[in-house]
Amino acid sequence: MKETSIKELAKIELKNPIMIEGLPGLGLVGKIATRYLIKQLKARKFAYLYSPHFPYFVLVNKKGSVRLLRGTFYFWKNEKGENDLILFTGDSQAQTIEGQYEISNVILDFAQRNNVKLIVTIGGYRVEAKDKPKVIAAATNSILLDRAIKAEALTSPMGSPIVGTAGLILGLAPFRKMDALCLLGETRGYLPDPKAAKSVLEVLLKFLNINVDLSGLNDEIAKAENMVARLQKIEEKRALQAEEIRKEEDKKITYIS
Amino acid sequence: MKETSIKELAKIELKNPIMIEGLPGLGLVGKIATRYLIKQLKARKFAYLYSPHFPYFVLVNKKGSVRLLRGTFYFWKNEKGENDLILFTGDSQAQTIEGQYEISNVILDFAQRNNVKLIVTIGGYRVEAKDKPKVIAAATNSILLDRAIKAEALTSPMGSPIVGTAGLILGLAPFRKMDALCLLGETRGYLPDPKAAKSVLEVLLKFLNINVDLSGLNDEIAKAENMVARLQKIEEKRALQAEEIRKEEDKKITYIS
Amino acid sequence: MKETSIKELAKIELKNPIMIEGLPGLGLVGKIATRYLIKQLKARKFAYLYSPHFPYFVLVNKKGSVRLLRGTFYFWKNEKGENDLILFTGDSQAQTIEGQYEISNVILDFAQRNNVKLIVTIGGYRVEAKDKPKVIAAATNSILLDRAIKAEALTSPMGSPIVGTAGLILGLAPFRKMDALCLLGETRGYLPDPKAAKSVLEVLLKFLNINVDLSGLNDEIAKAENMVARLQKIEEKRALQAEEIRKEEDKKITYIS
Amino acid sequence: MKETSIKELAKIELKNPIMIEGLPGLGLVGKIATRYLIKQLKARKFAYLYSPHFPYFVLVNKKGSVRLLRGTFYFWKNEKGENDLILFTGDSQAQTIEGQYEISNVILDFAQRNNVKLIVTIGGYRVEAKDKPKVIAAATNSILLDRAIKAEALTSPMGSPIVGTAGLILGLAPFRKMDALCLLGETRGYLPDPKAAKSVLEVLLKFLNINVDLSGLNDEIAKAENMVARLQKIEEKRALQAEEIRKEEDKKITYIS
Repeated sequence: MKETSIKELAKIELKNPIMIEGLPGLGLVGKIATRYLIKQLKARKFAYLYSPHFPYFVLVNKKGSVRLLRGTFYFWKNEKGENDLILFTGDSQAQTIEGQYEISNVILDFAQRNNVKLIVTIGGYRVEAKDKPKVIAAATNSILLDRAIKAEALTSPMGSPIVGTAGLILGLAPFRKMDALCLLGETRGYLPDPKAAKSVLEVLLKFLNINVDLSGLNDEIAKAENMVARLQKIEEKRALQAEEIRKEEDKKITYIS
Repeated sequence: MKETSIKELAKIELKNPIMIEGLPGLGLVGKIATRYLIKQLKARKFAYLYSPHFPYFVLVNKKGSVRLLRGTFYFWKNEKGENDLILFTGDSQAQTIEGQYEISNVILDFAQRNNVKLIVTIGGYRVEAKDKPKVIAAATNSILLDRAIKAEALTSPMGSPIVGTAGLILGLAPFRKMDALCLLGETRGYLPDPKAAKSVLEVLLKFLNINVDLSGLNDEIAKAENMVARLQKIEEKRALQAEEIRKEEDKKITYIS
Repeated sequence: MKETSIKELAKIELKNPIMIEGLPGLGLVGKIATRYLIKQLKARKFAYLYSPHFPYFVLVNKKGSVRLLRGTFYFWKNEKGENDLILFTGDSQAQTIEGQYEISNVILDFAQRNNVKLIVTIGGYRVEAKDKPKVIAAATNSILLDRAIKAEALTSPMGSPIVGTAGLILGLAPFRKMDALCLLGETRGYLPDPKAAKSVLEVLLKFLNINVDLSGLNDEIAKAENMVARLQKIEEKRALQAEEIRKEEDKKITYIS
Repeated sequence: MKETSIKELAKIELKNPIMIEGLPGLGLVGKIATRYLIKQLKARKFAYLYSPHFPYFVLVNKKGSVRLLRGTFYFWKNEKGENDLILFTGDSQAQTIEGQYEISNVILDFAQRNNVKLIVTIGGYRVEAKDKPKVIAAATNSILLDRAIKAEALTSPMGSPIVGTAGLILGLAPFRKMDALCLLGETRGYLPDPKAAKSVLEVLLKFLNINVDLSGLNDEIAKAENMVARLQKIEEKRALQAEEIRKEEDKKITYIS
């Protein structure tokens, strides 16, 4: 493993496969959503992606064994539909500018070899307040975008950047005559955000016309909201204290001068 | 797209073409000037430049479609003159040192294939005060520089650096027996500066002996000046407040000690 | 020397060699442990590793001579046992992400050419308090890990990262059908930590079934503990002073307002 | 110019040439010394070194012409002695780690093609106080070092790093069976230091057995010392003011509490 490369575990014949991509990013939206799908669909591993552009550490697995950072490709045979799925997620995005392009290109190489015609990338979109996180869509063509909007996504405001692999795949796909759609869940971004992931999955499942029970995410959402509430209380307390100190200081200045 | 590369949309026969280059930089002078020329001359796209050294995000276009960061080459057929034009602008400069050299070299490759003998690069030059921004010129030979001075540019003070693509193209052009001229508009640099862009265009048009109506920039200039005035007021207010706090503090120290 | 490369000083025939790797890292644990072994075993140099990814300075040796930063491979003929040893240590880790992968791969190339089937990497593991530093193990297979645990290592908590060459070698070894074990000594990490190195060596020697007198490290350990004690006193004094200043400030605020 | 490369202006036959290298670094010692030698010896340009690892700007020459950053090789025919000289200086060191190694290797390539058997590199060595700056030497062999010590250089303390091209050339020269000596003038390093450069030149000229009048540096030294004196006064004034403010603050705290 000296260059970004794919290690195939098995050769699988897939029927008109669509690829779903979700690497760690804002609010971990892409990774949470993709992992949940993999688990619920009981999708199975069939290839790894390794790269010297990932961070230079290894992770300890259960039982003290160790592995390189990597991306993993899973497949799912869709018994009732037209399209099988390839699902891709991983430990990290590339750490260098050129690595970002290189990894996106290697993902697309693999997609091409598996006759993928459409890739859906998933990520987060930073916004401050949010009740029910919206899902923003961008695509390599307008038919695809219209399908996403019918699945209740909104179009992205013009000029917005889409950072990292989720974006670059859309930029690079047309060079290979492939289509790609990007779904971004609104998130504050600094904590894992399963609520945004759920919103994205609702749109994605409608778009793909697949049924997956999303209630399994509700526990994670409740935990994440507790965490946010606790952090907000701490923040408010700090703000109050700062305010009181400021007032004391004001008095001091007024009395003396 | 794995290396910096050109994607040609059409093969165009051009007559003694001169290339104008203006990427984003100080005050966006190069980009504003080049874009304005493209619009006024109704120049037409004929090639894109892509690079893994651009920042690793994509941009959402109108209608939710998406594209890689890129540079774009436009051409203009000069019905009345000797020289057709190739105009080059783009979304970004390279993000790595080697990328800066690589992109400049690929621009020069393309220029060479199109029989360009002269390139004019446009950028900004940081100065504090400015009423009517001056235009500073540097060139690969003295005849070219003299022509620029006749078009009312000033020579650059010796030893000044010219940073980025606008500069590197001048440094690299002689290796290919090409000439290059750089025109830099004076700008404070931290805000888009259409006034500096207009000054550069006045010199450039005289230099090229082309007529283009520049009054279309006046609106943008007025808006930019309003913005600057508003920012200055805020700045002055802040300075006043800081001064008053300082005086209060002075009194306090004097009274107590 | 334009790429990471090995310069062999001698061709040595080794019997079922195991490689021990210990580069500088947290608490210098890997380097201190490996160097101590080399000295006690009177192991002998037989190859250098050079790389443009090491920092760009040279070191002055005794007598004013100079050398590039490098890694050094030593060998030890085990007269009583089944496995000879190759020991590797050096001046620095790679300074770039890609360099980290490249250097780990070149070490593995060299190991492979010498028929190494097992590599043990040594490093530090950051923890705050520690009396007798524990030794954490991770491995490419469970048999190896069990052997380490019998030698009184503990398994690493799941999900821990192992940063740098000590980790990457474990990640990369399976691609070459090689086994690797990593032993990490607990250390606060900001000072050279011979105590952690000694703990690691105790486990390593048991694991390898080799006898080496470790008492030679006791002097270094005493010196290091003196240093830590002195630094702690300075730190406490500073904390006390800061506390007193804070109290004075508190009084001031209370009296005035 | 897409890789680090040499552009030869003329093919010169040189007699047992010794190369002197002095790029910008601490106190600009290497560059000041080498440039002074070039001027006094009336050495003549015969090659340029270009590199995409230099910073990505160009410099405006007199008359508004422009050039890439580069290094320049000069030669000097020694009518009275055994060794001609090649002198190398330039605008900048490499900006990347790999670039540092690459440029040093390209300099050595050029030296080898010109039958250079010995290179002397010049730089600065950071120390705080200095009256008459000492000159520290390091070398690839002890005979060379002894010759430098006879020319009144001192040996470098063991373990000191020599950063950048001046050091890497010494590290890389033995790979090509070349000898190299490094002379470092003591300097505080943050301002151009012609005094340190003069000290180095005194040693170098004795070492080379060449006569060059060094009095031409005295003016520059006087100017530099004036500058340092002025900066010190400003610094002292600032320290005094800070002390007074501190005392006022102390009084305030004491009176109130």
